[in-house]
Amino acid sequence: MRYAVIGTGAVGGYYGASLARSGREVHFLLHSDYEYVKQNGLQVNSWKGSFHLDRPLVYDDVRKMPPCDVVLVGLKTTRNHLLKELLPPLLKTDTLVLLVQNGVGVEADVQKMFPETALAAGLAFICSSKTKPGVVEHQHYGSLTIGNYSCRDAGRIDALITDLTNSGIEAGEVEYQTARWRKAVWNMPFNGMTVALRCQTDQLLAHPYTRELIRRQMMEIVEATRAMNISGVDEAFVEQMIVTTEAMVPYSPSMRLDWDYSRPMELDYLYSRPLEMARAAGKPMHRLEMLEAELRFMESNRV
Amino acid sequence: MRYAVIGTGAVGGYYGASLARSGREVHFLLHSDYEYVKQNGLQVNSWKGSFHLDRPLVYDDVRKMPPCDVVLVGLKTTRNHLLKELLPPLLKTDTLVLLVQNGVGVEADVQKMFPETALAAGLAFICSSKTKPGVVEHQHYGSLTIGNYSCRDAGRIDALITDLTNSGIEAGEVEYQTARWRKAVWNMPFNGMTVALRCQTDQLLAHPYTRELIRRQMMEIVEATRAMNISGVDEAFVEQMIVTTEAMVPYSPSMRLDWDYSRPMELDYLYSRPLEMARAAGKPMHRLEMLEAELRFMESNRV
Repeated sequence: MRYAVIGTGAVGGYYGASLARSGREVHFLLHSDYEYVKQNGLQVNSWKGSFHLDRPLVYDDVRKMPPCDVVLVGLKTTRNHLLKELLPPLLKTDTLVLLVQNGVGVEADVQKMFPETALAAGLAFICSSKTKPGVVEHQHYGSLTIGNYSCRDAGRIDALITDLTNSGIEAGEVEYQTARWRKAVWNMPFNGMTVALRCQTDQLLAHPYTRELIRRQMMEIVEATRAMNISGVDEAFVEQMIVTTEAMVPYSPSMRLDWDYSRPMELDYLYSRPLEMARAAGKPMHRLEMLEAELRFMESNRV
Repeated sequence: MRYAVIGTGAVGGYYGASLARSGREVHFLLHSDYEYVKQNGLQVNSWKGSFHLDRPLVYDDVRKMPPCDVVLVGLKTTRNHLLKELLPPLLKTDTLVLLVQNGVGVEADVQKMFPETALAAGLAFICSSKTKPGVVEHQHYGSLTIGNYSCRDAGRIDALITDLTNSGIEAGEVEYQTARWRKAVWNMPFNGMTVALRCQTDQLLAHPYTRELIRRQMMEIVEATRAMNISGVDEAFVEQMIVTTEAMVPYSPSMRLDWDYSRPMELDYLYSRPLEMARAAGKPMHRLEMLEAELRFMESNRV
């Protein structure tokens, strides 16, 4: 299969480069890093073993890229309005678009833009960052879970998982809603709280009051998903998320980095959309609504 | 009646000085400002008319003070452990101790220290601050509502209200629980949120998300008081508090000032105690519990 990567950053860059290293044909769309990567290639510094792509297939314009079998979207959701321009040149009738993005409601909105296109969610469980042009630092974890949203060809999903596995990535399939909401269990409390309290994950878990608050915020999601008949998001999963996070190095989630670097925060898909769905299901998530209000206030009053 | 003021700051200083100006005998306990006020007197700069007490009765030691009929306590609740030493020299069998302090649960704790003493809550609706030694700035409002906690002599409360009224202070009596919890309707959202979001009251009401959040936090108190059979704390009062606050100049509540000046915040009586009472009544206040957790975290991690 032929791959395209849109948004060659900490996440898209890592998965795309891993696929390319294992021999897959991967076409990377780059923006500010284009000239540098064209000259110097792409470097991945990974805890699993570092590597360098000397001559990756890089582009500064999507119209120069070929149609692909799988398009991996690694953009921030705050830039998803760009997909209207970026996706069409890459699409064939059977292209699978994998949205490796944060939040809930992303696929529904992209499907509205491209009603005929097969979509899947890619849930990256990874600590990585792009520290400078052409260099991805991969500090921890690295699995990629696929949730099929609208792809009728199960073989395409299987082929993708095989390619990922062969490139050294722990990959698997999980029911779409379960996948998105499980990710939300971690994302909604930790992303916002590290911004609201200007801290890292370890500090939130070290203090008894915020540790309990994080657990209760996660339990709000458990109750909302139960009301929406979404399976696999239960109290045991909440405890597992807390234990897993505690075992991690002190971590700044992506929203904390967005805040620190004065980039827009992904508030729509990380908060507003899932909060709206929980309200519609009769299980409003009051603590996470409060967090949304605090973050909206902070974004508006940011100097 | 003979008065004592313990905690001659922005609040105790204003009410005490007003009583003294109208001819009442008022004995002021001072700490760091003692020498200055002894030399220079006490200055009140008030929107209602400024005045100066040339020779107020000031003390640096409570043991030099006479027993009084009314003791007005203007300390922060974070210093209430000092009352064990400060009150006894001032008490007669019929002394009324008026706790002009923030929060819920204050009287219960002071009563444990002094089981025989008549206590009342003093709810100050006032914007004032002590800007330098011996000077109280009184910017707005100024009423004092009395809630009788354990005074069996109704005449004593009436006499106090008469003295306050004659000194130009808008004063009246409200049922104790109603008085304390009405005050909490304003105090709990605005004190904590201005700290959590490093802002003033006007900004919270200007942003649609935080305005709605403040309203919902206030409604949590309405529901908790309903479950506790406390009257006079209803939705109409909530709307009135929001409208009144909107009409105020941009304001930093006392907890925001405590935070800014690295003083301990009054978290026990402003949050933990009322939150505990609401839980015991089966109406936990989730948003205000979250605010408590954020404030506890901030206090612990303050540099």
